[in-house]
Amino acid sequence: MTKLKNDTLIRALLRQPTEYTPVWLMRQAGRYLPEYNQTRARAGDFLSLCKNPDFATEVTMQPLARFPLDAAILFSDILTIPDAMGLGLYFAEGEGPKFERPLREEWEIRALTVPDPDVHLRYVMDAVAQIRKTLDNQVPLIGFSGSPFTLACYMVEGCGGTDFRQIKTMLYQRPDLLHHILNINAQAVIAYLNAQIESGAQAVMIFDTWGGALSHNAYQEFSLRYMSQILAGLIREHGGARIPAVVFTKGGGLWLESIANSGCDAVGLDWTVDIAEARRRIGDKVALQGNLDPAVLFATPEVIIAETEKILAGYGNGSGHVFNLGHGISQFTPPESALTLAEAVHALSRKYHQ
Amino acid sequence: MTKLKNDTLIRALLRQPTEYTPVWLMRQAGRYLPEYNQTRARAGDFLSLCKNPDFATEVTMQPLARFPLDAAILFSDILTIPDAMGLGLYFAEGEGPKFERPLREEWEIRALTVPDPDVHLRYVMDAVAQIRKTLDNQVPLIGFSGSPFTLACYMVEGCGGTDFRQIKTMLYQRPDLLHHILNINAQAVIAYLNAQIESGAQAVMIFDTWGGALSHNAYQEFSLRYMSQILAGLIREHGGARIPAVVFTKGGGLWLESIANSGCDAVGLDWTVDIAEARRRIGDKVALQGNLDPAVLFATPEVIIAETEKILAGYGNGSGHVFNLGHGISQFTPPESALTLAEAVHALSRKYHQ
Repeated sequence: MTKLKNDTLIRALLRQPTEYTPVWLMRQAGRYLPEYNQTRARAGDFLSLCKNPDFATEVTMQPLARFPLDAAILFSDILTIPDAMGLGLYFAEGEGPKFERPLREEWEIRALTVPDPDVHLRYVMDAVAQIRKTLDNQVPLIGFSGSPFTLACYMVEGCGGTDFRQIKTMLYQRPDLLHHILNINAQAVIAYLNAQIESGAQAVMIFDTWGGALSHNAYQEFSLRYMSQILAGLIREHGGARIPAVVFTKGGGLWLESIANSGCDAVGLDWTVDIAEARRRIGDKVALQGNLDPAVLFATPEVIIAETEKILAGYGNGSGHVFNLGHGISQFTPPESALTLAEAVHALSRKYHQ
Repeated sequence: MTKLKNDTLIRALLRQPTEYTPVWLMRQAGRYLPEYNQTRARAGDFLSLCKNPDFATEVTMQPLARFPLDAAILFSDILTIPDAMGLGLYFAEGEGPKFERPLREEWEIRALTVPDPDVHLRYVMDAVAQIRKTLDNQVPLIGFSGSPFTLACYMVEGCGGTDFRQIKTMLYQRPDLLHHILNINAQAVIAYLNAQIESGAQAVMIFDTWGGALSHNAYQEFSLRYMSQILAGLIREHGGARIPAVVFTKGGGLWLESIANSGCDAVGLDWTVDIAEARRRIGDKVALQGNLDPAVLFATPEVIIAETEKILAGYGNGSGHVFNLGHGISQFTPPESALTLAEAVHALSRKYHQ
């Protein structure tokens, strides 16, 4: 077991005592950092950046050089799995991710297979290993994947930001077909996250970006159920250390109790949730991660500090809270705001850990 | 007091006994109906349709001719108020609403004034009066407005579907300016809805389409507070009849208790909320309206009927439920699905009203 110099994140996720509240930021390696944009320009485009372990390592490390963050997160995309399945991920300039070959026909769905992460997603495992080496145990490395349902949204719709018409038509009209896709996706995510853990990821997170678009019944059946399957299939101990797992359903605030029962160690909260109320509902069962509105980072340092204090005070005394944004950091964020935030979390949280 | 031939909706909103659960559909007069598209083509464009009381009456009546709905809803746009303030509402082909002159400078915000509904929004009042006359007391007519915060989003961003960067920057950086806009908007909505009531609207609904994008604290301060102001300023009795008011915050499922305390008679639920749970939380205080996922209407009649029964059973016995979708009906909905739904609600709900 290699000893982390700063294991505050791991301890907080496992609800063990810490000296302060750890902090990291969803999408912390991203377009709001000029050095990221420079690396991306050198790489050519976003996918080349993801697929080259040298570049992926470089951008993963960038926010750690600027801000006192308590974790690194693998730089990658949530859609690597369907890309490895052969759907042809691409990014049109100025638009979100798209697939060249979305799932339109039943035979295409029946032909889906689980990619071997050590073969088809080798570049991710190489990046994980290289980042771990570069990190030199400074802070833990978080691995991640999209949730089976979120992957399926992109696979069926062919792109994000839709009205979910195609996937919901399938859900209500041909639930058997959607369950088939979700089963394959869940197996693929288990293999993918376990390979990340074996390559060096010290915590994992499942991003369920679109689960919040479902009705409460459909969420249980088509999203949470498959995340529970994944959690049951994950390696939870590696190299003598416990590997905490975080589940984050954006827009899932109504379902916190059932998410907390999924087998995860921590639940990610978006910014609509009152963290004090969330702790009352589930905070004796799991750790909580979140949940500052990313738009607060457009404000002055005084406002950033005041809003940070509100969330720390909302969570209250004791361990079990990982500070984060309630959603990925905006590309329009001034980097100084992220510094103000990270420093404020560390300075203001000590009084809650005495 | 003119006697409604079918006042089931009004009774349900006031939680008085009914023989069955009334049903109407958000955006029931819309692009999924071929006859709507024909009228719109004759009108020229969407805004000309809204601004011509003859056309507005025609499309308002269309869904009632097809489906056994228990209410008509004024055909109009939620952005008539900022248009009347002089911001220049327009619709680019294939895109959502936009403003020619969004609020960018403090002096523009300070110059905002409350439009006189009987002058600047005369066309809406004329439409309300004409629709009432045409309805001939068959079913009640619902009037509506956007919420102060939702209007402000469009006024500041200049369009919908954004990341809310401009309005949230204002919210966190210059809350005084946003409160100024919201105060003006709340006064404008009070005058607008009261004029609709005096022109013949028999129930009113406030659409808070974007309140769900706020953090829980910001929602209370910047959205709900102003809806409460409106509810306190509304005419609640007219022509001897109580005028029920419905508040609908899309994505507001976490805040149902505080919405129910806003002074409204009914709370609209989006499809993510479990209506059984919502009734446990607030159903002894107000009526509930909702909440079928509009995507269910892409499925077969059997699925539509089964999902309808789930919601009726979820609400359970007794009055206080108005069946609706959890969001506006999609333009891709087969009209037959809306018929299946309306008939199913009537047939299946009688057992809950014995």
